Amino acid sequence: MSDALARRIAETLHAREGTARAWGLKFEDAGEGWARCSLIVRPDMLNGHDVAHGGMIFALADTSFAWACNSRNVKSLAQHAAITFLSPVTAGEKLIAEAHEQALAGRSGVYAVKVTADDGRTVAIFEGLSRAVGGGAVD
Amino acid sequence: MSDALARRIAETLHAREGTARAWGLKFEDAGEGWARCSLIVRPDMLNGHDVAHGGMIFALADTSFAWACNSRNVKSLAQHAAITFLSPVTAGEKLIAEAHEQALAGRSGVYAVKVTADDGRTVAIFEGLSRAVGGGAVD
Amino acid sequence: MSDALARRIAETLHAREGTARAWGLKFEDAGEGWARCSLIVRPDMLNGHDVAHGGMIFALADTSFAWACNSRNVKSLAQHAAITFLSPVTAGEKLIAEAHEQALAGRSGVYAVKVTADDGRTVAIFEGLSRAVGGGAVD
Amino acid sequence: MSDALARRIAETLHAREGTARAWGLKFEDAGEGWARCSLIVRPDMLNGHDVAHGGMIFALADTSFAWACNSRNVKSLAQHAAITFLSPVTAGEKLIAEAHEQALAGRSGVYAVKVTADDGRTVAIFEGLSRAVGGGAVD
Repeated sequence: MSDALARRIAETLHAREGTARAWGLKFEDAGEGWARCSLIVRPDMLNGHDVAHGGMIFALADTSFAWACNSRNVKSLAQHAAITFLSPVTAGEKLIAEAHEQALAGRSGVYAVKVTADDGRTVAIFEGLSRAVGGGAVD
Repeated sequence: MSDALARRIAETLHAREGTARAWGLKFEDAGEGWARCSLIVRPDMLNGHDVAHGGMIFALADTSFAWACNSRNVKSLAQHAAITFLSPVTAGEKLIAEAHEQALAGRSGVYAVKVTADDGRTVAIFEGLSRAVGGGAVD
Repeated sequence: MSDALARRIAETLHAREGTARAWGLKFEDAGEGWARCSLIVRPDMLNGHDVAHGGMIFALADTSFAWACNSRNVKSLAQHAAITFLSPVTAGEKLIAEAHEQALAGRSGVYAVKVTADDGRTVAIFEGLSRAVGGGAVD
Repeated sequence: MSDALARRIAETLHAREGTARAWGLKFEDAGEGWARCSLIVRPDMLNGHDVAHGGMIFALADTSFAWACNSRNVKSLAQHAAITFLSPVTAGEKLIAEAHEQALAGRSGVYAVKVTADDGRTVAIFEGLSRAVGGGAVD
């Protein structure tokens, strides 16, 4: 049941996100405390060194984090996030971000996200700190 | 001279960035060790809670960081970055990111970025760690 | 007046800290939104590679951050902190940490700390995120 | 074999650390890519609010990270680390930090550390970024 709720929340948030359409970002799967999404890197996502803009890799990771921290239907916002870039990404590569809850304490939650390319290499490690602000994430 | 070089590098990187056109991101100004850019938040940059996606705010900050850490024409890549979100942003707001070098040691550099809205409030604080990889940032 | 209050708060916290005596940590100065402290690195502060333990450098920076975020006499706790290590430190060196407020929004505050050695080189850059929990920092 | 090497490295580093004796820090166990250590919080580890100084919690986590990133006997240094504080700690509590490798790419490694109290609650989440500098960690 809790996984079904998490899936419905992620799909609802995904449908509302202007960014999801703009970036061709796909919902992959979700459950209580975790979520997974993907996108294919396009030429309009490259930086001036011709590799994926760090902002796009962050944005993908941040989306999986947002779905995971809202997965219990308690509206939660990102308060802080950090990313380590491990491998450059070129146009045409598919990136997958998967977020998992590490700890919950009071209104705070900590989530770890791994971003991988479809050849299996780890592209980035992301960590997010959420804060529950009350109310439901979706109706 | 060094400021003119920094400006030329930022403008060159900006012209090459697929993301700059996709996001309507503007070069504002740059100098040795610093850079400033801006964008106007559009509906396709909102998340499922109807405020600017954290990924977009990060992407703007990350762009100013990239220009600042390449401003001496030593090609440098982002290795790690962290962002604290302080105030939600709605569609139509103009955001300005300004990056300043905090320290350089060997191949590493640390940059602080403040993201402000046009009403003057601080939207986010970003910190980036760069690594010089050798070669010039632009020809 | 506000600087005198900040100084009194830092000195009061300093006098209460078991760590201050254990580490020989000195109060240097403080004002509204900022604080400075120092310590001399001892052999019992070195790690297995014979340089100052990262935990000690963090602890010094964290102390200046704690004083700065409590400087308005609103009890505030560290919620998140990050540090970049830029230069190794050997026994006998004096380290100075100086924290400055970057932004305040609601209950959150962001502080930047620079740790320098007495030869002037930057040893570490630290960033702290505080949360006001209500009540006074000191009586 | 690789776990035996990791254990020998952690024990060797531990024996050399001035901080280990100063803090009563104990080696618990280690293996390839991971390590665990502990300490009991003493009055001289408390801050001005009478709870464990964030610097001590960081120092414990940082030690497990150092052992884990040196566990393959490639000398590695901490380049960046971040910590989220989730629950205050009082004198007399035993804290355990366990570090696990998340990713390796080139000379960079990312490690996640969880710090728990002996009642099982999560006290802090730590993330460390290491850089291999060449040479062995121990002889």
